[in-house]
Amino acid sequence: MPDAPLFERLCIVGPGLVGSSILRVARQRGDVARHLVATARSAETLDRVRALGIADTVEADPARAVAGCDAVILCVPVGAYAGVMAAIAPHLAPGCILSDVGSTKGSVLRDLVPLLPPGIHLVPAHPMAGTEHSGPDAGFAELFQGRWCIITPPEGTDPAAVARLRALWERAGSMIETMDAATHDRVVATVSHLPHLIAFTICGTADDLAQETREAVLRFAASGFRDFTRIAASDVDMWRDIFLNNREAVLEMLARLTEDAQAFGRAIRRGEAGFIEDRIRRGRKIRRSLIEINQA
Amino acid sequence: MPDAPLFERLCIVGPGLVGSSILRVARQRGDVARHLVATARSAETLDRVRALGIADTVEADPARAVAGCDAVILCVPVGAYAGVMAAIAPHLAPGCILSDVGSTKGSVLRDLVPLLPPGIHLVPAHPMAGTEHSGPDAGFAELFQGRWCIITPPEGTDPAAVARLRALWERAGSMIETMDAATHDRVVATVSHLPHLIAFTICGTADDLAQETREAVLRFAASGFRDFTRIAASDVDMWRDIFLNNREAVLEMLARLTEDAQAFGRAIRRGEAGFIEDRIRRGRKIRRSLIEINQA
Repeated sequence: MPDAPLFERLCIVGPGLVGSSILRVARQRGDVARHLVATARSAETLDRVRALGIADTVEADPARAVAGCDAVILCVPVGAYAGVMAAIAPHLAPGCILSDVGSTKGSVLRDLVPLLPPGIHLVPAHPMAGTEHSGPDAGFAELFQGRWCIITPPEGTDPAAVARLRALWERAGSMIETMDAATHDRVVATVSHLPHLIAFTICGTADDLAQETREAVLRFAASGFRDFTRIAASDVDMWRDIFLNNREAVLEMLARLTEDAQAFGRAIRRGEAGFIEDRIRRGRKIRRSLIEINQA
Repeated sequence: MPDAPLFERLCIVGPGLVGSSILRVARQRGDVARHLVATARSAETLDRVRALGIADTVEADPARAVAGCDAVILCVPVGAYAGVMAAIAPHLAPGCILSDVGSTKGSVLRDLVPLLPPGIHLVPAHPMAGTEHSGPDAGFAELFQGRWCIITPPEGTDPAAVARLRALWERAGSMIETMDAATHDRVVATVSHLPHLIAFTICGTADDLAQETREAVLRFAASGFRDFTRIAASDVDMWRDIFLNNREAVLEMLARLTEDAQAFGRAIRRGEAGFIEDRIRRGRKIRRSLIEINQA
């Protein structure tokens, strides 16, 4: 017999890749929530969720969708949080856990806390999982298996609420880590947001080349460039909102990278073999560290 | 019955990942060369090639190794070409085809042409294939299957010599393209050298972070950062020589990328959503182009 469900009524606001994957996990396991609610802005998304049969209730009005739920998870781009929160805050049930899956966490506190009714438990989370696809059809129940989920509860959050949200992500197969929002934002700026910024940029740089070279570049895209384009094939709205909502950390890491890349270029210009070898060796060292901790 | 061998006696100078893979192709097919010679600077490499049984003659002295060969392929880091050429040039057999597998081609002309004896056919080549491993044990016969090989013969090169070298790479399973050295160097700076420079740099940038953040960065390395470290796990000597020998093209592309990344950062600082969306869309467009031409 499966464990008792963690929640009576779970609402996913924005059942795209991540949100629909949570619904699929809950559907498959049966021990996450007794009743699954999905709400989305677009009629097309609502239709797809209905057709996929991954929610018990599909509701266009977010206020009605969250009413009576003991857990609500925002799965929309982080730039939409303030607007969604204004619509749902008066309708959240007392004692409800309000969570999210956004890639920036300082902005979540900024946008949700001022509108948070008393008695609602805010437990932000960031499942570090995704693919280059988006939308309800792109989701799958195994998306979170073996991936990290970072939980960033504000100081003073009810430990019981944190434990229930944690249990949800454990049942989805994730490994859990808890940290404050500011540390989270610096870490993800380094491991994810900055690499994506460079990936988007380098594609544009190639696109700007003279036509003849540009065609050859596409034809001969070696593994290096292919890796860049893979991470550059991502959802526009989500990434725009990430950059705008993790501004300080991304700009700091970009400034550091730019300084370091210019130092590398200077070493090339001056023929400083030792400096270049040192940089390559450090890359290999980090690579080995990654392999050692089984992340590679 | 297989075709007649293209060459009587083929010498691989530097049987590492690429060189030993050429030897394996020749061994397996039987229609590349009747006799396979390998020469290397280190006794350890020579011992491994002997143990692997992938050459008929293993010879420490490069002058003796190339003597009597009708094809010699340099597979050492491009920075070693001038030294190797000084040692072998007087011993190259008349009519011999001299080729290489280096990732920079302007430097090959610079280093080899001044020492080239009359009657020797210089046909530089760049097989765009590799792994993150190096050395004779890392090679395999399928390395070049379905990959591009760019041939950059200087103007006036004997067409028969170009055709024979081309046939070698076709038998290795590669697709062939011919262009001049300068175009080659701009293209590979874009698709390969610059992405590697950024990959090496971003690993160093992460390594410089305060200890606490650094550990978290390693723990949570998301897919973006993992892709960077994969391309950063490469041979030190080879990559140092690439950067030093494709200096102008790499510096030009780095300058373009730096400008573009700073423009991206400026848009983040100023909250210019439209600019950011445009950059993300261009990345996706390049990605689609890559998929369309079956390179992804």
